[in-house]
Formats: sequence, C-alpha cells, structure tokens
Amino acid sequence: MSLVLLTKYFHLRHLSNSSHAEIILLMNRCYNFSAGPANLPLEVLEQAQADLVDYQETGMSVMEMSHRGKTYMAIHQKAEKDLRLLMDISENYKVLFLQGGASTQFAAVPMNLFSSNRSADYVKTGAWSKKAIAEAKRYGTVRVIASSEDKNFNYIPSISADQYSANADYLHITSNNTIYGTCFANLPTGEVTLVCDMSSDILSKSYDVNKFGLIYAGSQKNIGPSGLTIVIVREDLLGRAMDITPTMLDYQTHANSGSMFNTPPCFSIYMAGLVFERMLSNGGIKSMEARNKEKAQLLYDFLDQSNLFSATVEGSSRSIMNIPFVTGRQDLDEQFISEAELNNLKTLKGHRSVGGMRASIYNAFPKKGVETLIDFMSEFENSNV
Amino acid sequence: MSLVLLTKYFHLRHLSNSSHAEIILLMNRCYNFSAGPANLPLEVLEQAQADLVDYQETGMSVMEMSHRGKTYMAIHQKAEKDLRLLMDISENYKVLFLQGGASTQFAAVPMNLFSSNRSADYVKTGAWSKKAIAEAKRYGTVRVIASSEDKNFNYIPSISADQYSANADYLHITSNNTIYGTCFANLPTGEVTLVCDMSSDILSKSYDVNKFGLIYAGSQKNIGPSGLTIVIVREDLLGRAMDITPTMLDYQTHANSGSMFNTPPCFSIYMAGLVFERMLSNGGIKSMEARNKEKAQLLYDFLDQSNLFSATVEGSSRSIMNIPFVTGRQDLDEQFISEAELNNLKTLKGHRSVGGMRASIYNAFPKKGVETLIDFMSEFENSNV
Repeated sequence: MSLVLLTKYFHLRHLSNSSHAEIILLMNRCYNFSAGPANLPLEVLEQAQADLVDYQETGMSVMEMSHRGKTYMAIHQKAEKDLRLLMDISENYKVLFLQGGASTQFAAVPMNLFSSNRSADYVKTGAWSKKAIAEAKRYGTVRVIASSEDKNFNYIPSISADQYSANADYLHITSNNTIYGTCFANLPTGEVTLVCDMSSDILSKSYDVNKFGLIYAGSQKNIGPSGLTIVIVREDLLGRAMDITPTMLDYQTHANSGSMFNTPPCFSIYMAGLVFERMLSNGGIKSMEARNKEKAQLLYDFLDQSNLFSATVEGSSRSIMNIPFVTGRQDLDEQFISEAELNNLKTLKGHRSVGGMRASIYNAFPKKGVETLIDFMSEFENSNV
Repeated sequence: MSLVLLTKYFHLRHLSNSSHAEIILLMNRCYNFSAGPANLPLEVLEQAQADLVDYQETGMSVMEMSHRGKTYMAIHQKAEKDLRLLMDISENYKVLFLQGGASTQFAAVPMNLFSSNRSADYVKTGAWSKKAIAEAKRYGTVRVIASSEDKNFNYIPSISADQYSANADYLHITSNNTIYGTCFANLPTGEVTLVCDMSSDILSKSYDVNKFGLIYAGSQKNIGPSGLTIVIVREDLLGRAMDITPTMLDYQTHANSGSMFNTPPCFSIYMAGLVFERMLSNGGIKSMEARNKEKAQLLYDFLDQSNLFSATVEGSSRSIMNIPFVTGRQDLDEQFISEAELNNLKTLKGHRSVGGMRASIYNAFPKKGVETLIDFMSEFENSNV
C-alpha cells in the first residue's frame, strides 16, 4: 500500500466511522463533488471495465465496433428505449443523441425553432442562460422576461403567463443552475412552447415531458461521460430550420436517421445506456427523486443549523443537485477545501462567481458521501468556531 | 469455455498456424476489419481498462473528473503536445479538439474560411467529398475542379494548379476515401489554401502539415473512439468566420480557449492521448507508415496474383488503409463474408456503393491479422475455383 493510500486509510477510518471492509472498498474511490463531468455509478464503471476489451464475446471493444453493425445498433436502440421508459416520453417526441454540448444547442434551438417571427422569450437565471440568450440574439429578437441577476442569481424569479410576448416562438428556461445552485420549483404555465436546458437536473426528478416543446441536456452530470448531448423534441417543431442552419445542427437530420446520420459518440451512448438500465432496475425516476431529496435535505438541514456554514440559496429556489455554501471568510473556505481534499472529499471548491464551496450531489453521488461531508463539516466547525 | 469460444479456438488453431499460447491470447479478440469505428491498440484498451474506475490513485474515473481540474488538464495538454510531436505541427497552427464529426466540419470549413468571395474549389472523389460539396454550396459558390465519379470513384483524378479558380478561398480534398479505397499519391501543388478531410488516413503516413491551411479528421479510425474531431488550422485563417456561424462552429472560439470553451469529450481525448503516446514510443509516424505499407502490400500482392479475388482500385490511387476487393460473384462474396466471420475475421462486408468485401487495416490493425486473412482467402480460393 502506498503512503498516499495509507494516509487516506487512516483519514477515512477516523472520519467516517466506517468498518475496515467499507474503507477498503472506498480506498480506490473518493467522494467526488464535481459539478461535471461528475460521479458515475460504481457498478456502471465496473461493468464498462469488464466489457472494455471484449464486449460480450464479440472479440472487440464497444469503442471499436462499426456503428452500423447489429451489436452497436442494439446498444443504441436500447439506450433510447430505456430513456423513453424512464422519462415516460410520448411517441410524438423524438429522442436525439447528438454531440457538441448544451453550448451547441444555444444556437441550434433558435436556428430550428424560429418561425418568420424570429422571436423568443428567455428567463435569465445564471451564466448558462446568459450564454443561451447571447447566442439566440444573433439569429433573432430575444426578450428577457425575468431575471435574478440583481441578487447574483441566488433565486428563481417568478413568472406568469401575462409576461409572455405575443409573437414569441418559444420560452426558454434553465431548469437547474449548476453554478448558483438554484432550480425552478414550478415550471412556467400557460400556452407556450417551453424549451428547457435540463443539463444539470435531467433524470434527477420527475418532469412531465409533455409540458415541453424541447428539452436538451449535456450528458456529463446525470447521464454519462461528456461528449453526448440529448435532445427531446416534439415532432411538430421539426422541419422548420432556418436556411442557414448547418445540416448537422438541423434536428430533422438526426430525427430522420435515428441519430445515425454520421458516426455517433458510441462509447458515451453505451455508458448512458448502462446508467439508464441501472436506474430502471432501481425503481426509475421516482425512487431516484426520493433519494436525491433525502441527500439534499440532509445537507440543507445541517447548513441551516450551523454556526459556521450557510447555504447561499434560500427556500423554494434551492437545487437538490448543486448546493453552494460559504463560511463568510475566504481564508476559512480555502482551509476547509484543502482539508476536505485530504479527507477524500474532492472538488468542493465553489465556482468563482459565487465563491466558497459547492457540493454537487448528482444521481450517482452516494448518501454515505453526504453523511461523510456533514461529519467532516461538524468537525471543522468545532475546531474553527 | 463456452461453445462459441471453443469453436473459435479450433477455427483459429486450424487456420492461422498459431501456437496454443497465441490462440489463447487471441481468444477474446477478433480481427476486426471495420471501416470505423475501428481497431484500437490492445495495449491502449488494457491501459484504459486498468485506469477505468480509479485513474492514478485519484479515486475517480477519467470520465468523472472536472475538465477544469489539474488531472484532466494534464491529460488534455499532453494529448495536444504529443499530436504536435507526432505530426511535427508548427507553432503557427492551432490544434483543436472538437465534437460533431467530419460532417460538422463540412459546414464549419466554409463558414470559417469563406472571405467576401464565398468561393471554393473542391475535388470530388467519393461519398464524403460529395457531402462536403453539398454543404459548402449552401454558403457560397463551389466549383468541382476534378472528379472520379465517371468510374464509381475507383481512382484519384489528376489535378494541376492551372485548374484552380482565381478567386477561390480554398481547395478542398479528401486525402483517403474510406468507401472506395483510394488515396492521393501526391498532394495538389501551387499557390492555394489546401483544406483536407484526413479522417481515414491521418497519422497513417507522413504529411507535411505546412502544406495545408486546414486539416480535419474524425477520430474513429486512427485516433481513438468516436466523438472527437481534430482540426489543425493555420492561425491566419482564424477570426474571419461568417456572421451567421454558431459560436461553437467558429474555430476562434476553441483556439482562444485551448479547446475548453465548454466541456470537451474528455474520455475520447484521454484515449486519443494513449494512442499518441504509444505511437511516439513505437517510432512515430515514419515507423507506422512502414508497417502500414507492408501490411497493405501483402494484401495487394495476394489480390494481384489471385484467380478469384481482385482489388477494385488500380495503381497509384490505392489506399493503404481501406482495401476493397471482389470475387465478381455476389453469392461467392456473401459466402466468403460469412465464412470469414466464423473464422474470427469480422466486418469484411464492403460498402453498398462498391459491393464485395473491404479490409480496413488502420494503424492498430495487426500484421498477423492481414496474414490470417490471406491464409483464409487462399483456402477459400482453393475450395471455390
């Protein structure tokens, strides 16, 4: 055992009241609070590891297979089928497996959804919606109907249907704001084509897909490795892309070909498929939502009674995925982050826009990791207040 | 040992004159002639397998790491550095790690390189250059200065500088044509901004990067898993994208941020890095080129003396990466493909545009596999002529 691992062992043994056997299991894994790319389920990684050189006696890795061959096609189609089951996606929606991240969708959305009006309403709730707004403005008229910029995006502004522009082609929201740790407690209502960047809370809780015209999400938080972008789009919104739209950014291209117009990001789709399969066998989204709420509640409850730490977001705007918190003193924040790192609690540094710490506790993040964080915060508080 | 594996064992033992030990090693791997995604070096897959759950005692998979963290940043920067070494890329070129495949570049190239002329010359040598031409036409004027469509693209047309349009912003070629098995023996010469789709022969032989304005390549043949697209672009060609270019398709965006404007396809880049590292330690591109030429020559020599099989491409247009061949009888082709499959020689079916068979023998395809294919073809020929 290396010195690094030995040190890790004693830290873990001391901190988390885990048994020797639990610690040994954990030795090769840390508690990873990364905002994305983020934690994947250990069982999924182990399955990928077992399959890596020879997938199911095919004599090749999933990474080496023709995407037109029957083995990969089965993986691809099952991933779509399982995602449809998980999110209860109706037949009048297409599910697309794309590349380029949500950032590419910031252009693809207006290019595909603008009618001759070329007009859309956006809600500004953070850095990502700002980028979405800036990109859409390049292709038409954007009206920001609500914003929380006045308080550094630490809340979700209220929205009512009478704010919508009469000629808007769609209303765009970011359901969960990774950097600021906010999320929409309720979706905007009324007659509107709702478009949602769901990158950081897709699959974390129940959403009624029928309420959306289009959902898009980068994969690297709750779905799988980076390099895959999922778009779920109502069929009547297809086929009206602006003339200037690159073929690869036109949703119709991928809807027509089952996301096989060109070589898809096969390995990322395979990994996403393993994640979907595991979620289905563990009770689907309802169970995941219950576990996520329980994990988040543990941490918020601790923060709300702490004399040292406090959450930066209040009330119904609180995200169950990303929880920023601060001590109020920069030097103490830095000390906390480096001591946490030594205790196997990694990537807790907050985004520079908020400062302090941020615990991203996506679907695959274990409850035991939240408990271990809270134990460590208690100890830190006792030593530093 | 399962029945499938047992059958495989006896086929291999009979066919390839390999020892028991060699066969056991090969049992879990086939000879995979896929045109892409394609073979990866076994050592690279085994390294990825070892690293998968815990990368270098970080306690996390490469797939789970923040792309802004120092561990992933080191992987990312080393991959670029090693690619620069391998291809001897000058400092006045940017190397970009992108997403979306070569198909996305079919739009990005004209969007980025068209001046106010909006005009380019293209050479039409197959299905992919046709797609590149069609997409570029949506943004400006395209003149096809040479084509081999008259003979189902089974040769590379000759090109001379006096054919170039005076006002063309660039000349576009596809260096190797995956479907038809052709490649440019010599690059076009003269004063021209040469743009090359190098998807299926990048890193297979020496190219002088300084002769190109821009090179692009999907990763899934000689680089790594699908989901990564590499662009190598001369700096003076940056910063002149058309107004309508999506931010994510503007090369300047990624050049400014070291390909970290948004979350990159981290795992594919890590895999590509492992491939680059291994190539460097095995003598770089010169050695790879020698091995590739030797492998291809073995197969062409066999085809040229065979009474049953023949190559579909002649002379200096022959690719060393993709070698289509036919028996001249469709039923025999089909019989060959299915018997080859049983003998662990997989994905030999030719593209529907050419028919027959195609052996794609990219960098990672072993010489032993070519020898085994030739042994099998000999046996098949003896039984069927």
